[in-house]
Amino acid sequence: MRKKTVIVLGVDGYLGWATALHLSAAGHEVVGIDSLVRRRWDRECGTQSLVPIKTMPQRVNSWRRLTSRTIDWRQMDLCDARAVTQLVREVRPEALVHFAEQRSAPFSMIDLGHAALTQVNNLVGTLNLLFALRDHAPAAHLVKLGTMGEYGTPNIDIEEGFLTITHNGRQDRLPFPMQPGSFYHLSKLHDSHNIQFACRIWGLRATDLHQGVVYGNHTDEVGMDPSLSTRFDYDAIWGTVLNRFCVQAAVGLPLTVYGKGGQTRGFLDIRDTVACVRLAIEHPAAEGEYRVFNQFTEQFTVKALAQKVRQARAAHGLDTRIVHLRNPRVEREEHYYNAKHQKLLDLGLQPHFLGDTLIESMIDTVERHAARVDPIELEQPNVDWRRGGTPGWQKSAEPEPSVARLV
Amino acid sequence: MRKKTVIVLGVDGYLGWATALHLSAAGHEVVGIDSLVRRRWDRECGTQSLVPIKTMPQRVNSWRRLTSRTIDWRQMDLCDARAVTQLVREVRPEALVHFAEQRSAPFSMIDLGHAALTQVNNLVGTLNLLFALRDHAPAAHLVKLGTMGEYGTPNIDIEEGFLTITHNGRQDRLPFPMQPGSFYHLSKLHDSHNIQFACRIWGLRATDLHQGVVYGNHTDEVGMDPSLSTRFDYDAIWGTVLNRFCVQAAVGLPLTVYGKGGQTRGFLDIRDTVACVRLAIEHPAAEGEYRVFNQFTEQFTVKALAQKVRQARAAHGLDTRIVHLRNPRVEREEHYYNAKHQKLLDLGLQPHFLGDTLIESMIDTVERHAARVDPIELEQPNVDWRRGGTPGWQKSAEPEPSVARLV
Repeated sequence: MRKKTVIVLGVDGYLGWATALHLSAAGHEVVGIDSLVRRRWDRECGTQSLVPIKTMPQRVNSWRRLTSRTIDWRQMDLCDARAVTQLVREVRPEALVHFAEQRSAPFSMIDLGHAALTQVNNLVGTLNLLFALRDHAPAAHLVKLGTMGEYGTPNIDIEEGFLTITHNGRQDRLPFPMQPGSFYHLSKLHDSHNIQFACRIWGLRATDLHQGVVYGNHTDEVGMDPSLSTRFDYDAIWGTVLNRFCVQAAVGLPLTVYGKGGQTRGFLDIRDTVACVRLAIEHPAAEGEYRVFNQFTEQFTVKALAQKVRQARAAHGLDTRIVHLRNPRVEREEHYYNAKHQKLLDLGLQPHFLGDTLIESMIDTVERHAARVDPIELEQPNVDWRRGGTPGWQKSAEPEPSVARLV
Repeated sequence: MRKKTVIVLGVDGYLGWATALHLSAAGHEVVGIDSLVRRRWDRECGTQSLVPIKTMPQRVNSWRRLTSRTIDWRQMDLCDARAVTQLVREVRPEALVHFAEQRSAPFSMIDLGHAALTQVNNLVGTLNLLFALRDHAPAAHLVKLGTMGEYGTPNIDIEEGFLTITHNGRQDRLPFPMQPGSFYHLSKLHDSHNIQFACRIWGLRATDLHQGVVYGNHTDEVGMDPSLSTRFDYDAIWGTVLNRFCVQAAVGLPLTVYGKGGQTRGFLDIRDTVACVRLAIEHPAAEGEYRVFNQFTEQFTVKALAQKVRQARAAHGLDTRIVHLRNPRVEREEHYYNAKHQKLLDLGLQPHFLGDTLIESMIDTVERHAARVDPIELEQPNVDWRRGGTPGWQKSAEPEPSVARLV
């Protein structure tokens, strides 16, 4: 496999960092950029990664020391159009992995300010990138992180991005109809449409990875040394469901399921995320092609996930309770869900399925950092889809300044 | 029909103004808001309405003098979240008609700055409105101007917003798959998704009018006095195809068709636009309902439209040439097109079809204002979908300041 020059956008994030290491370990030349806004949002939200993470300079120094490989780290905001243009013109990347977006659904539902910030930040950053590619690297392959949440929960099988529809005796292959469930998920859908259009009119190449919910925080590279750790979020804003269950189990709290818990989603191990991104880069889209890969390996209901955690604990004689909370989100709690995810398997993905061992290792991780668990983060969710955030949240984000800061 | 309090957003525009007069004449209480940005964009683009238009204070004074009816005019930017909240809280409208968006496809394709400005302006304005409605007028009916251009040109019949899809033996009614053809059209699609979501989670009521290409500039109200005239745009940025053909015919230039001219679109008379908006307001959506009406009355190819103009001229012994230019847009030039438009007819719309008389009256209008025709505006189109605007355009709009000014 020929080595490529790859820009990882959002390299300071949970998946951006693990992906950069994985690509670097595979021999690709990695340029990593990030505005570090996620660390600022942590301060604003009063949240933090359960696993301590180093600064970006410390991380890349540590990586070089351990592997003799270099990650070219640069602090930069994707919403700064001039900086993006300069970056693409100078680096002339063969591929770009785009994680550089606000990625929390609850954050986007706090209030108007956070909704507008999410959509403006995500759209403007991606538009900046598309125009820079058109002008300075039209053959580069854009690998964009989207989300399975763009599809919503239709009552038909979910295909990978497109659907052949027969209607009144005529047929066409059309974008799959989408029903996103938050202003964040909507921002990803807006991006998808913008990118698809840019491929069509400018001949750009893009792979849109519609990713499921990722769990775990161990990859071969991240696990080499504590200084290479990636984030572990478990709070109500940034944490995802399995992380929260593992923290609740570790500290002896009941697992909190929203509503009936019949919500079904696609899930994958972080080791599969980094492998999927690498596979996409190593098998690029054609000129003018916009393709979608559904990036997950298994689908579960939230309730089944809670039961898996309870079972893993029971094997050690530990008893874990499951409680159902009033659902703060507006979503179907019992529904059909059957999403295809064949294309990455066809490229060679070897999935890591969710088993007791993984859950136990996640709980071990929590126990090692138990002193950093903030019990308040495990209580009632504080962002309601109908009413928004608590007064404390609303106070912390005046609409105009937040948006204005980003564009 | 009970009279309602209606806010018309974008009241200074081509259709906003005609709609405000029509609703006022029908007895509704009209509050009209506009940032007047369209007049600024005219200065920036070096364009102007062929028909002279008065200032907003002059227009509303003239309307009061002629009819004793009042339009409550307020200058305000929909991107100013605080002002929008105050407006909705104070007026407590029963309906809102939302025209307040950047509405030119070529403008959005000039360069990155104009693409981002279009999407940020349109999205942020609509988000501001949705949150203000949630908090201060949740029962109000939002009538949003969308566009038939959201659908693109699929190879199947276009339904009104939703399509029942059978796939692998299961069925669902889902949003119609969309393929917009410019960053402007994409902004309307982004809006549609945001509004649909707000209806679903907050119980808001909305009608999304997916409008075709409007022609004409005469309604019963606008025609009462020259001081009530609405815009007539014919330039390459703001002008639509029939207006351009009429101006070309009037000044003796050939009608310029982009590419083969087989592009088919839905069209309607401005008198039908104002009637459709009134019908939507007088038959509101239900609580939580997001509905789509396809708002046009006939569909034509661009070539057929040119031939209609040539025929109307030939009846007076005048000879008009039709020439085909290289298409600056990226679009199908020969394609299937069959779009449904039944729902507004069911509410009572009496269409005005495009006939020779209308074309002649449009050409008469041009001839009355012939001294204001700028021939440069009728030459080669200057915004190319592949390369963007001319250097002059690019110079006039630096990305960051334009966007920053708007949010």
